[in-house]
Amino acid sequence: MFLENTWYVACTTEEVQDKPLGRRICGQSIVFYRGKENTVAALEDFCPHRGAALSLGSVCEGNLMCGYHGLVMGADGKAVSMPMQRVGGFPCIKSYAVVERYGFIWVWPGDPERADDTLIPHLDWAVSPEWAFGGGLYHIHCDYRLMIDNLMDLTHEAYVHAGSIGQDEIDESPVKTRKDGEQVVTSRTMENIIAPPFWQAAMRANGLDDAAPVDRWQISRFTAPGHVLIDVGVAYAGKGGFEADPAVKASAIVVDFMTPETEDSHWYFWGMARHFKPDDQALTASIREGQGAIFKQDLAVLEAQQANRRTFPDRRLLALNIDAGGVQSRRMLDQLIQAEREAAPQPVAG
Amino acid sequence: MFLENTWYVACTTEEVQDKPLGRRICGQSIVFYRGKENTVAALEDFCPHRGAALSLGSVCEGNLMCGYHGLVMGADGKAVSMPMQRVGGFPCIKSYAVVERYGFIWVWPGDPERADDTLIPHLDWAVSPEWAFGGGLYHIHCDYRLMIDNLMDLTHEAYVHAGSIGQDEIDESPVKTRKDGEQVVTSRTMENIIAPPFWQAAMRANGLDDAAPVDRWQISRFTAPGHVLIDVGVAYAGKGGFEADPAVKASAIVVDFMTPETEDSHWYFWGMARHFKPDDQALTASIREGQGAIFKQDLAVLEAQQANRRTFPDRRLLALNIDAGGVQSRRMLDQLIQAEREAAPQPVAG
Amino acid sequence: MFLENTWYVACTTEEVQDKPLGRRICGQSIVFYRGKENTVAALEDFCPHRGAALSLGSVCEGNLMCGYHGLVMGADGKAVSMPMQRVGGFPCIKSYAVVERYGFIWVWPGDPERADDTLIPHLDWAVSPEWAFGGGLYHIHCDYRLMIDNLMDLTHEAYVHAGSIGQDEIDESPVKTRKDGEQVVTSRTMENIIAPPFWQAAMRANGLDDAAPVDRWQISRFTAPGHVLIDVGVAYAGKGGFEADPAVKASAIVVDFMTPETEDSHWYFWGMARHFKPDDQALTASIREGQGAIFKQDLAVLEAQQANRRTFPDRRLLALNIDAGGVQSRRMLDQLIQAEREAAPQPVAG
Repeated sequence: MFLENTWYVACTTEEVQDKPLGRRICGQSIVFYRGKENTVAALEDFCPHRGAALSLGSVCEGNLMCGYHGLVMGADGKAVSMPMQRVGGFPCIKSYAVVERYGFIWVWPGDPERADDTLIPHLDWAVSPEWAFGGGLYHIHCDYRLMIDNLMDLTHEAYVHAGSIGQDEIDESPVKTRKDGEQVVTSRTMENIIAPPFWQAAMRANGLDDAAPVDRWQISRFTAPGHVLIDVGVAYAGKGGFEADPAVKASAIVVDFMTPETEDSHWYFWGMARHFKPDDQALTASIREGQGAIFKQDLAVLEAQQANRRTFPDRRLLALNIDAGGVQSRRMLDQLIQAEREAAPQPVAG
Repeated sequence: MFLENTWYVACTTEEVQDKPLGRRICGQSIVFYRGKENTVAALEDFCPHRGAALSLGSVCEGNLMCGYHGLVMGADGKAVSMPMQRVGGFPCIKSYAVVERYGFIWVWPGDPERADDTLIPHLDWAVSPEWAFGGGLYHIHCDYRLMIDNLMDLTHEAYVHAGSIGQDEIDESPVKTRKDGEQVVTSRTMENIIAPPFWQAAMRANGLDDAAPVDRWQISRFTAPGHVLIDVGVAYAGKGGFEADPAVKASAIVVDFMTPETEDSHWYFWGMARHFKPDDQALTASIREGQGAIFKQDLAVLEAQQANRRTFPDRRLLALNIDAGGVQSRRMLDQLIQAEREAAPQPVAG
Repeated sequence: MFLENTWYVACTTEEVQDKPLGRRICGQSIVFYRGKENTVAALEDFCPHRGAALSLGSVCEGNLMCGYHGLVMGADGKAVSMPMQRVGGFPCIKSYAVVERYGFIWVWPGDPERADDTLIPHLDWAVSPEWAFGGGLYHIHCDYRLMIDNLMDLTHEAYVHAGSIGQDEIDESPVKTRKDGEQVVTSRTMENIIAPPFWQAAMRANGLDDAAPVDRWQISRFTAPGHVLIDVGVAYAGKGGFEADPAVKASAIVVDFMTPETEDSHWYFWGMARHFKPDDQALTASIREGQGAIFKQDLAVLEAQQANRRTFPDRRLLALNIDAGGVQSRRMLDQLIQAEREAAPQPVAG
């Protein structure tokens, strides 16, 4: 049960170049390719001729040609041509609304008539020269909502990521969770502490004294269907924290787009947008490598958690204050899914 | 649902030498071994003592000895001996009719009383010194009928095998499909064309000018339960094509025996019998290598097609004129299976 | 359906050191760790907070800390602490009775109130300086009772282990099976034979003439739930066999603890305790290596047997005299399981 009339990150710009890409999203098999004028298109990954996977085909004059018998499909899901055949009566396949923006390809798995690209979240960091971004993609065998829980409660950093971004003070600082329009926001502030290793390196990279006491913040913002953007950073203590002048802080946004593949697996697009030294590509690479290693630790924990949910299906879990971010995010998601189902045309009895 | 009272290729002569071979065919677990006078025998792969796999045993004085506790089984499925035991009352296991011919071992999964070795197709190329054969075996995770479809419509060569045996003219030449007794025959002729790379090499090997225009033919012949033999070749243009004098042509038979393992997987025995330079073993090896690489391309396409049929189980596929060979072959197979079921003894009610 | 109120070998002492160990036993997910004063404790491998696997956590001041959000669990299954949380109302998880003894960690999967460590079998060889032990662990994909069958009928040595411990005389010597209190005992004696290679090496290691005729014995003793200890050895012929003076014999105990993981898989703790040259560690290593290789042969046979039982679920197997050991052991096990179920508190209707 997924929210369908919404935008998901399907893949990165780099993943769809010369060859089509097949990817399952919300249980639907979709092929992405670059069609006319290099525009990305998305179709059901199913050739209406004999059911071959169109993702094994190739792009031919802006259309997608099936690699089995040469049926050429248009971006609208209609057959364009096939050698020696009249294709006018061929059945159509579903064409997906798709937009390439911010280095990602966004897909709308539901009704393409309702797709509205103004609903794609606006990502300042992706278009401003003051920011640099690096990231990656993990395929994770767990319900994407377990990853939402994970990111909306950064308490786990003290345990899963001890030695990098974790530190004891995380535990000792209460979190505040609130709903802010279509966002769920969980925030935690640690005041007058020594930065953990990851942030000390960021401070050095930013020309700051990494031994100085800092105020550290983590502000996780969930928006449906599976986006968590986390303002993170440190500023010299007492200078205003998240609001401090850029000259006395190192700040970034942890970028997390979770796209369900099936009920039990998802695509996790992770990355970090940083607001300092945007032109330092070596720094981008080094942060990406570090972050990739850290997020691999989550992967192991979440896949074991998913396995445990199968082993102990009837156990109720606790919802503590630290879990409020995940709980409220799931509730928002459930309400949106419920509303979508109620708005769907009902089958007529008879 | 498989045709059972018929011959399938179970394995090659080479696969059954000193050791027994266990292989699942039409859903049945069978062990093949060389018994008395080196004759191949086939039994259920199930020891009636404790259910061990007989295929892990060994051949002992022409009988098959279970490798667990030494029960010796005869080719008739009856227990022969066991140390310290009287085996007279031991239950029998099924013994299969089996024939070694043409370099293959043929098995009849149904009623052995009805097995008739004159029903094994006659393969001239396998016994004539004018022909040479080389081939291989692939285990493919798809319904064997998808491979029949594949071979009864060589249109796919233009796409799946572009660069080797594929060429644009395939698409541009109509196919003719007809039923000829117990065969379904699909044929296509391309006239006055330049041979594709694979056939240019064959022409050179045969002492012909590979740049000369040729007539090319492909005549796929399906017979139940899963055999497709394809006459293929090129002759200098206007010399009679398939009927041309051997001196002006290079011809061969693509050999395809598909043996179901389960509903979703099969054993694919592929090869090429060629009617030129039969003594050139290096040529045999080189053709086999090339053909093996080409047929690997089909494997990827068909396994993805099988996966798609699971994902989209309710979609109806198209049956175009190019699909007539596969459609008619499946129809012939369905009729034979239906007839076999109707002829089977019915359980008595009461 | 497993016997639950009984002791199983869960793991070896070496397997639980600094880090917790997660292992599924009788279908239950259990985490083992060393808590206060280095004492082994066992809990459900399920954090009551969010269902994380506790086995991914760490030991903290003698308690088990969840690696996700830092919930600390005590050995009694009660939450001890969690940063910024009151844990008094947290749900408990199951705590298992567990005892470390003889180099193994024993777990009682049923009601811990009924756990009685005097019921752990007494293993003289594990505490006497006259004996040396070496062994290993295999994870085997078959019902643990197939391994009990295997060990309670050593006829298979002549086939599965020809060339090491197998020899033709095994087959030619009848077995005697009897019930002896809570044991099932199967014994076989081979008189005045030449020792097989494995025992010749043992004789040499023990300073005996390996070419001399011997009496050989195999006495398999099953006790519930899955222990088979086998007295094995050779003595100079006519000197009393199993009862002979230590100076004229080489003897040992084959140690086999089978612990079910699921209905179709088990943990097989195997080893050999020998009653000669106990201080020769090189000999221990060499025997372990040899035994490991021999027992790998069983593994292949049993996993194929398990697969065959799925393929032929309705076939009845034979129960010959050689099978009496396995048959009686299973019957004893079935009776104990039946009794345990009848003694369990019944759900009240209404």
